[in-house]
Amino acid sequence: MKLPASTEWALHCATTLAQVEPRRTVSAAQLADYYDLPAPYLAKQLKALAKAGVFTATSGPRGGYRLARPPSEITLLQIVEAIDGAASPFECHEIRQQGRGALSPEDCRHTCAIAAAMADAHEAWRRSLADVTLADILDRIPSWAPARTRSLLTES
Amino acid sequence: MKLPASTEWALHCATTLAQVEPRRTVSAAQLADYYDLPAPYLAKQLKALAKAGVFTATSGPRGGYRLARPPSEITLLQIVEAIDGAASPFECHEIRQQGRGALSPEDCRHTCAIAAAMADAHEAWRRSLADVTLADILDRIPSWAPARTRSLLTES
Repeated sequence: MKLPASTEWALHCATTLAQVEPRRTVSAAQLADYYDLPAPYLAKQLKALAKAGVFTATSGPRGGYRLARPPSEITLLQIVEAIDGAASPFECHEIRQQGRGALSPEDCRHTCAIAAAMADAHEAWRRSLADVTLADILDRIPSWAPARTRSLLTES
Repeated sequence: MKLPASTEWALHCATTLAQVEPRRTVSAAQLADYYDLPAPYLAKQLKALAKAGVFTATSGPRGGYRLARPPSEITLLQIVEAIDGAASPFECHEIRQQGRGALSPEDCRHTCAIAAAMADAHEAWRRSLADVTLADILDRIPSWAPARTRSLLTES
């Protein structure tokens, strides 16, 4: 199982926006330049983040993106699921109801114990990512980083 | 992110083997028939489970597969990772070291806070699946199921 490479882009771009002044917007082109990413494909991901309510998009000559909420109110889970959706990596095709060993629909009214355990694991993954906000990430990066980020973005 | 469909096959086949008499083997053809699965592709997955030490393969006219250990000593994680490997779905490409905002290698001696949080989530997922054994799954299926499974496999 793999998350799209753009998951890393989204998490880093969100962390970048969390480091700039609250009302400041950063354009898709600036973010693509900042991380040397393919601009058209990054633009698509930024739109997905805006659609999911993680970023706010503004148009016009000074338009771009900013966080839709304070960093303490945006979780890594919200960012990851804006890119890849919320579905569990395990897809249950109810093979217990097919073939020689097929169980009857009446015997399958309850979720299969295997599917339930896989769903529990996905919830553990989700809870872990829901527990980390962008504010937590900012707490874990070097103290000089935000000023450097703001400065580099101002020059670009 | 998606696990291969064969993950469900592997989990169900392992649960089936956990229901038969300890020394009894079940052939790949019987398992394919039991769940109406494509035999050649299922055979490949069963071999992967044997290679990972979850199943024991025996050859000969009455050959086939059985569990390599008691059901209480086989976790869902071991089965899932035999099929899909142990890699995290999040791949870190160190984009923090590229582009206009590139950090120096010296500033990147520690794992990126984002990659660390994603690794924590993967570990939460792994722990959840490592906590569930095939014996736990047997405890959660109807009490009449094992006798039915054994009977259907004897007739096949």
